[in-house]
Amino acid sequence: MVAKTAIRTGSDLGGAQTRKTAIADSACRAVERKGVRDLRVEDVAAEAGVSPALVYYYFGTRDALLAETFSHSNALSAAETDRRLKPSATARGTLEQFLLLELTEVWAVRQNWVVWTEMLGSALFDPTISALLAEVTDAWVAQIEALVRAGREDGSIGPGASPSDAAELLTSVLDGVGTKWMLGHMTARRARSLVREAIARELDG
Amino acid sequence: MVAKTAIRTGSDLGGAQTRKTAIADSACRAVERKGVRDLRVEDVAAEAGVSPALVYYYFGTRDALLAETFSHSNALSAAETDRRLKPSATARGTLEQFLLLELTEVWAVRQNWVVWTEMLGSALFDPTISALLAEVTDAWVAQIEALVRAGREDGSIGPGASPSDAAELLTSVLDGVGTKWMLGHMTARRARSLVREAIARELDG
Repeated sequence: MVAKTAIRTGSDLGGAQTRKTAIADSACRAVERKGVRDLRVEDVAAEAGVSPALVYYYFGTRDALLAETFSHSNALSAAETDRRLKPSATARGTLEQFLLLELTEVWAVRQNWVVWTEMLGSALFDPTISALLAEVTDAWVAQIEALVRAGREDGSIGPGASPSDAAELLTSVLDGVGTKWMLGHMTARRARSLVREAIARELDG
Repeated sequence: MVAKTAIRTGSDLGGAQTRKTAIADSACRAVERKGVRDLRVEDVAAEAGVSPALVYYYFGTRDALLAETFSHSNALSAAETDRRLKPSATARGTLEQFLLLELTEVWAVRQNWVVWTEMLGSALFDPTISALLAEVTDAWVAQIEALVRAGREDGSIGPGASPSDAAELLTSVLDGVGTKWMLGHMTARRARSLVREAIARELDG
């Protein structure tokens, strides 16, 4: 239900933010179901139960909507990971959880794999999406790299591990096995076991 | 130029195979340029300079054409790798070349990355493509696994390496860094250096 009065007057900014978030949620669901390439603003509007005009009102263009969908999908998945993250005595413990929680069977995480894979395909043919993907990927690698540095400081990660190389390699492994898991080509158990093995090889040295 | 007489009479099977291959080449180019999702049989026909009817004649359906395109793209890339592969005294040397040659700037290899990524995106929404992708991926992992086994036998790979795990992890790393390289988010030099590092960590043990 959309209170159009509030949108016209701008008197309900909190409500507007909620509606914008609800539309972004719907966009994630729409991408998960039918992909990015064929996605029309009308599909997102139908999924959200609002008018296409309202989607344009909040997002401006289809490209901006897609960019926002990608960011929102990541944020949903990250929030889910944060909710499940247990306090760890070491940076390495946190890093392990960060990676392994990406292989859990919950909607926010799984839809993010689908959205991510869709964005990857679109990035081949769309420089804007490619730039956005690079930005999000770099931020993700930087997050793991920071944990490797912290782990070297607290002694939970060996001094032989190069933070930038380890972060690239571990996120690559996660991408590879996570994609297979998402497609049903590998069990979550096997995927997690391979990530644990990669962590041991990269971080014990 | 297509000799339709030969097709009608079936008297020129070698020529027919050549034409089928030429159409598959064109399909690879078409996928590389505009992706799989929007690809019509007409686009492939136009790229090949033949009629859509002829494409249907050789491939039957759009799905069969896509499957053939994927296999053909892999075959082109594999042939290019074979051409560049230097004789190696050890299975490990061959394995290293196999992986690193996937990061060389030649058309057959690069277009295969694009086709592969496109197929991955389509696999999300198409069980036939998903099954095909699983088959091709499994064959690729099995090829690397066989080289790890051979390397353990010839002594070039340490006894601590699990052939199946090492093969999954190394192909995952290659996928991750190769995708970034293809998108221009990582240099070929950095990608190759990371693959070398992963090989050392996986196979020295």
